[in-house]
Amino acid sequence: MRVSRYLLATLKESPANAEVLSHQLMLRAGMIRRVAAGVYNWLPLGLRVLRRVETIIREEMDRAGAQEVLLPAVQPGELWKESGRWEEYGPELLRFTDRHQRDFCIGPTHEEIITALIKNEVRSYRQLPANYYQIQTKFRDEIRPRFGVMRGREFIMKDAYSFDVDPAGMQQSFDAMHGAYTAIFTRMQLQFTSVQADPGAIGGNFSSEFHVLADSGEDAIATCPAANYAANAELVPLPPPAEQRPPPGAALEEVSTPGAATITDLCAACGTTPERTVKTLLVKGEAGPVALVLRGDHDLSLVKAEAVAGVRTPLQFADAAEVQAAGAAKGFAGPPGLAVKVVADHGALQLADFYCGANRADMHYKNANWERDMPLPEAADLRKAAAGDRCPAAGGGALEIRRGIEVGHIFQLGQKYSRAMNATCLNEAGEAVPMFMGCYGIGVTRLVAACIEQNHDERGIIWPAPLAPFDVCLVPIGYHKSPAVRQAADALHQSLTKAGIQTLLDDRNERPGVIFADMELIGIPRRLVLSGQTLDKSAAEHTVRRSGETEMLPLDGLVEELRRRVQASPR
Amino acid sequence: MRVSRYLLATLKESPANAEVLSHQLMLRAGMIRRVAAGVYNWLPLGLRVLRRVETIIREEMDRAGAQEVLLPAVQPGELWKESGRWEEYGPELLRFTDRHQRDFCIGPTHEEIITALIKNEVRSYRQLPANYYQIQTKFRDEIRPRFGVMRGREFIMKDAYSFDVDPAGMQQSFDAMHGAYTAIFTRMQLQFTSVQADPGAIGGNFSSEFHVLADSGEDAIATCPAANYAANAELVPLPPPAEQRPPPGAALEEVSTPGAATITDLCAACGTTPERTVKTLLVKGEAGPVALVLRGDHDLSLVKAEAVAGVRTPLQFADAAEVQAAGAAKGFAGPPGLAVKVVADHGALQLADFYCGANRADMHYKNANWERDMPLPEAADLRKAAAGDRCPAAGGGALEIRRGIEVGHIFQLGQKYSRAMNATCLNEAGEAVPMFMGCYGIGVTRLVAACIEQNHDERGIIWPAPLAPFDVCLVPIGYHKSPAVRQAADALHQSLTKAGIQTLLDDRNERPGVIFADMELIGIPRRLVLSGQTLDKSAAEHTVRRSGETEMLPLDGLVEELRRRVQASPR
Repeated sequence: MRVSRYLLATLKESPANAEVLSHQLMLRAGMIRRVAAGVYNWLPLGLRVLRRVETIIREEMDRAGAQEVLLPAVQPGELWKESGRWEEYGPELLRFTDRHQRDFCIGPTHEEIITALIKNEVRSYRQLPANYYQIQTKFRDEIRPRFGVMRGREFIMKDAYSFDVDPAGMQQSFDAMHGAYTAIFTRMQLQFTSVQADPGAIGGNFSSEFHVLADSGEDAIATCPAANYAANAELVPLPPPAEQRPPPGAALEEVSTPGAATITDLCAACGTTPERTVKTLLVKGEAGPVALVLRGDHDLSLVKAEAVAGVRTPLQFADAAEVQAAGAAKGFAGPPGLAVKVVADHGALQLADFYCGANRADMHYKNANWERDMPLPEAADLRKAAAGDRCPAAGGGALEIRRGIEVGHIFQLGQKYSRAMNATCLNEAGEAVPMFMGCYGIGVTRLVAACIEQNHDERGIIWPAPLAPFDVCLVPIGYHKSPAVRQAADALHQSLTKAGIQTLLDDRNERPGVIFADMELIGIPRRLVLSGQTLDKSAAEHTVRRSGETEMLPLDGLVEELRRRVQASPR
Repeated sequence: MRVSRYLLATLKESPANAEVLSHQLMLRAGMIRRVAAGVYNWLPLGLRVLRRVETIIREEMDRAGAQEVLLPAVQPGELWKESGRWEEYGPELLRFTDRHQRDFCIGPTHEEIITALIKNEVRSYRQLPANYYQIQTKFRDEIRPRFGVMRGREFIMKDAYSFDVDPAGMQQSFDAMHGAYTAIFTRMQLQFTSVQADPGAIGGNFSSEFHVLADSGEDAIATCPAANYAANAELVPLPPPAEQRPPPGAALEEVSTPGAATITDLCAACGTTPERTVKTLLVKGEAGPVALVLRGDHDLSLVKAEAVAGVRTPLQFADAAEVQAAGAAKGFAGPPGLAVKVVADHGALQLADFYCGANRADMHYKNANWERDMPLPEAADLRKAAAGDRCPAAGGGALEIRRGIEVGHIFQLGQKYSRAMNATCLNEAGEAVPMFMGCYGIGVTRLVAACIEQNHDERGIIWPAPLAPFDVCLVPIGYHKSPAVRQAADALHQSLTKAGIQTLLDDRNERPGVIFADMELIGIPRRLVLSGQTLDKSAAEHTVRRSGETEMLPLDGLVEELRRRVQASPR
């Protein structure tokens, strides 16, 4: 491909409103352009990467025995009513009526469609196991789409759905997908981990997430190499400590803390540290608000909080009227005297002589103690795991916390959808049983962004070879002045292309510095420079984008040598 | 691929509600399943065909220098307001609001999106010509979706958009796409023709349609081999005849024709023939209805009718109140005494002593004559071409009429969108000019159905080799009884697959008759049968689906022979 005939839409400046690096780099490299909030055009360069991602996924899904189908983007509301999700699903489900006033939605996921299909096509356990997948455009009407294609509204997913006659079969199908996902992300040369996760709105009783590891990741992952354990930090069980709570020491004091509505401000005002404070979060509950109490340095786990009896799902903070009715003051809530149900994390319950809000503006208590100054509340495991927490697995040590970007999520759904939609098959005994399903997603467009978060430097993107839009860029210096350079570059471009090496020839009449910067920005793994000087040596200069390693390679045998190297990092 | 692990969802019975053959066969072969009106699931077998279609299109678009992009399915209403089509487009444009009450639509086409994109990316004629294409899911909310994927609501299109600095460049881009389309349909081994067409709602001043020829086609195509002429029959110019109209003969008579509201009934009632009658169609106009008069055996051209001054677009028949106000009676309208503007086709104006409606229920005139019995109306070219009409091209003879299915449409848009959306680039003189655009569509999903309409027999589909879901089906007889057959079949399956021949091994425990019928229904081009008998001869029986030709091929060298034959009908 020649740049002169290609939409190379690189930008010098980082565009406003691009908060994360992958979003900035995708815009600057000319991979995507914004159409509306969370809706993007994929330009030729971005689409090449997307297609490489899709191809690897497709090959590994096929290898795992899954069959590709294509389900519609537009789905009839009646199927969602059958599963019960028409009511359950929030405003992320984009609903509309067609010209005949019938209910439809643009599918954010396809459990209903596939279950309705397969219930009519599969009659007997003999036709199982079966696993159907598609790579397809979906829509989720996020309230605040952000980070480019990382959390867009229109996005591409690979979704797969397995059907089995019994739980053992479902487990096998799940394990096969776990293996396929591992193969997919490994082939993409990504650093990733799979973790136990929370099935959430999709349902079912067991799920694993796959995370691409990156410092900028939204998710915290707790790992313990000793026990080979990894889980979403939200989910790690953190049982009560074996030790007794120390007895109360000093007497309760009221302290004036003007404007200190956060733990940081409180510590600054009182000269204390977060682990000697508690924070009190008022959230909406089924019968009035519920107060969740954590140690000041601990983070609430949304998943654990939503599991507390009486707490409303999805978790929402109490509004101003509710805070007032509870007898609290915004930013200064504390357990003493609160007129609502109080649930405290084991870590907060372990404290003595701690700071907490006094339920009046600008006031806190010092040396507060459970039982002495306020009733002992219900105890619960409410917090996210932090570095140093004990690994719950046998033989585990201290947990480490890494950041990850969720790119895959696989679920054992059990019979949730097959029961609701009456999708049965005959088992070996001739009885009709609702099928046991699994579902398996990969965020295809998000994966491109996640890869960039993991693979970049100050000059731009560094594609892992299997995902690069081109294998090699060919930069001739003096293409528009020296017939010898032009001829050599054109010939080399042709032979590389013929050898199956995807080559981008930068034939623009630009300064070498501009071309080098563009090629580094878009992240082509290998650069070949041809100039009068290199031709004098019958050679080309070869530079590896990631390492910066440079060497002269003789033109004689160059194509073969490049092919060997490119194949060594197979797509 | 083994049938035992594949969703081969063939049906014995032709499903109700499938009106056309391709729809019946796609359901029976298990290629598609209905989800809602005009919305389908593509099962594994259908998707394989779709992918082959897409691959050929992609390769030829790339070869023609077009660059693949991916534009969003969901489009912001503001862009459609900018082009003016938010108001112009009918209810086929599926509009909705997102959770923030902003206007969106699901794109039936992408002129607005691409124009908005390219106006920001292209500044100078030096970046042109450029042509961007995508293969993507679209939605058109048809009032009466029908014929399966032939006229669905959700469908896949390849759409491309070219940009040039001047009309000559636009013509070159258009010609290049004409060439690419010809290459695409030729590679697919389809019988097709390209015809002059009507740009319609897309706009612009010149367009060509590509039709797959099939007796069941909705469109009539007028061709003249002598002049190498082909056009949509709606569009063929049919000038007034050179001859004078004969003078009136007999006197005007009123005849009673009870219930004879159609030309057929009128002819039966009066013992005459359609070419001695006229029909009078009352259509809605800007200022009251307009009467369009044609000879009884002629068909109205919608395109020509919509070009008549004062006729409302899109064409709609007058309602009952308007018919009455015009002084006509439904089914018995005629030019004499009509209180509206009358426009007559040249063919109707050529008649003397003809039959026409008397504007009273159950009554017609006999021996009616222009000028004598009613004023001479405005003359126009209103009808579709019919077999035997004169070809308008130089050196042309009599036109033939063939039936076609429109699968492609290419347009010279000119500056319609670039002007409305201010998409300019600098020309060589440094002036900003709105770019000259072309747009180029192929109905990808429809193409699959059109191919079946052209390629089938009473036993099912007959795929042209380049579009077949599998190259070969392998049918072992006695697979579940004879270890020798099983071993030979498994080995052959493996070697064929390894040789790059897409092979479907039917390893079901079914009677050979059932298997043969299924394989013929789904239309695999070649069948290999292995049995005890053929193994005794160290051979396999090879049958060609289209010709039925059968021969024994020695197992020794079979894979090589098959590869040779399959490559001779390249994909």
